[in-house]
Amino acid sequence: MAPITDSYGSRRDRDAAIITRKEPVVYSDLDGVEDVDMRSKLEYFKVNGYVVIEDLFTEDEVELLRSEVQSLAEKDEIKGLDETVLEPGSNNVSSIFKVHTISETVDHLARDERLLNMARSILGSDVYLHQSRANLKPGFREKEFYWHSDFETWHVEDGMPRMRAASCSVLLTDNNETNGPLMVMPGSQSYFISCVGETPNASYKKSTKKQKYGVPDDDSLRFLAEQCGIKPVIAKAGSVVFFDCNTMHGSNSNISPLPRSNLFFAYNSIKNAIKEPKYGLTPRPEYVATREPFNALRARQSDGLA
Amino acid sequence: MAPITDSYGSRRDRDAAIITRKEPVVYSDLDGVEDVDMRSKLEYFKVNGYVVIEDLFTEDEVELLRSEVQSLAEKDEIKGLDETVLEPGSNNVSSIFKVHTISETVDHLARDERLLNMARSILGSDVYLHQSRANLKPGFREKEFYWHSDFETWHVEDGMPRMRAASCSVLLTDNNETNGPLMVMPGSQSYFISCVGETPNASYKKSTKKQKYGVPDDDSLRFLAEQCGIKPVIAKAGSVVFFDCNTMHGSNSNISPLPRSNLFFAYNSIKNAIKEPKYGLTPRPEYVATREPFNALRARQSDGLA
Repeated sequence: MAPITDSYGSRRDRDAAIITRKEPVVYSDLDGVEDVDMRSKLEYFKVNGYVVIEDLFTEDEVELLRSEVQSLAEKDEIKGLDETVLEPGSNNVSSIFKVHTISETVDHLARDERLLNMARSILGSDVYLHQSRANLKPGFREKEFYWHSDFETWHVEDGMPRMRAASCSVLLTDNNETNGPLMVMPGSQSYFISCVGETPNASYKKSTKKQKYGVPDDDSLRFLAEQCGIKPVIAKAGSVVFFDCNTMHGSNSNISPLPRSNLFFAYNSIKNAIKEPKYGLTPRPEYVATREPFNALRARQSDGLA
Repeated sequence: MAPITDSYGSRRDRDAAIITRKEPVVYSDLDGVEDVDMRSKLEYFKVNGYVVIEDLFTEDEVELLRSEVQSLAEKDEIKGLDETVLEPGSNNVSSIFKVHTISETVDHLARDERLLNMARSILGSDVYLHQSRANLKPGFREKEFYWHSDFETWHVEDGMPRMRAASCSVLLTDNNETNGPLMVMPGSQSYFISCVGETPNASYKKSTKKQKYGVPDDDSLRFLAEQCGIKPVIAKAGSVVFFDCNTMHGSNSNISPLPRSNLFFAYNSIKNAIKEPKYGLTPRPEYVATREPFNALRARQSDGLA
């Protein structure tokens, strides 16, 4: 059994529950933020649990990142890595985990001041990368990704103590209304949905393709959708979406011929380093959830990504 | 082998092909249409292969239709019919075929002048119902419906000679950008995509749940999407979408908690009555493709649906 002190118990043998968030959403003191643009983004994030920063990267930078990801995905030695997820029944790469340790360009991106300043401002501290990932989605037969809170998984499976992490998606292709864009429930970061059912060990192997545990129940989702609405994130390549670790999000399938790809970084506060997984679960591999060392990311001047 | 005179051969053992449409899209003489609003709708339909008529039915009418469909879907005797498709692994009704012969209200709707005038004007003749269907989609775990042309199926599996039929969807719930709305490729009605592969007999049993044959290839879809773009049909309950039998359409999954339901009518010109299926296929059942009698639908004055 989980200790009684766990504010965010989930996947235990009991009914679903909606639990009020205990922590701040933005950890910086907003009154102390002098940059007007940054402050307005943080205020939006605080209320909505996400923010879109349009055209944060130039077309040339996007092209550099896209070709870097494409070239990684074509290498046989990358396809053979544990870090790499192939599409079911094909030899095509759909995700590469811990990609910032494989590609210097992606490492530069993760430490680019444009991203790092935002992550630090949200989390009010130095940050480290809990997870990084390149995602390639070719369109046509791309399945939905069901509603989930990243924090629910990170809390239960990785032992992340508190809601003090932010996910960041750097769009390498346009997200429009027909190619299965990210959908968020604005404001849902304030509600923790405790999920029904227990997690068998090693669920991560499947959950990176399709979430199977930590699935919110219909009544809670209906409640959240009524409270918060559902917002598709429509944005051009080069835009960046930050969303709170507990924001309810998902995406519909993509039958359009328009591919989608992105680079995903999960920034965690160094004050929120992960501990043991809950309920005696075996820790997930290092490339899914970094355990050590929890060194603060060092910023890199924005003189490009190369 | 299909006779050499078939303009729209498909599913034969050869590569995919894109064939130019041989027939008109709108069969009425547009210059002779005096009603300005009708004429503008027909002109839009001619170019785009679909048209949305917003708020064609009142809220009260929608409520009547929605409760009629809901009450049919709850009846055990309806669930037991061949005409009824249940969701896989559940006892919930997802479609009821030939629903206009089961429900007087739906029969009234199919013959309502608001629909019938449009169908007749598009097809330039009297019309009959090739197929009718009530569709109930509860949201949450509703899968995508892949790209297809209705005519491809109707031509091959039902022996429909020419492109002189129009599909009509009466929306009983709002279609918004997050609940997997109908998507069309505007202008695609002018291209027939000949599909690869042969059709085994009795494919209809599966294809009503998920299209498995008559699936367009990736290159043709990419060509069409580049030529035509992809348009999600966003409209309120009570709105009606007419689309040409050859318009490429589909829908993404719906993970939102927002259900979708509609009443679907396939109006065919009485001059285009179906013949034998192609390639010696066994005719699909009467409730999927009416064979006789091909009697023209008689209009019903618009004094409501009750």
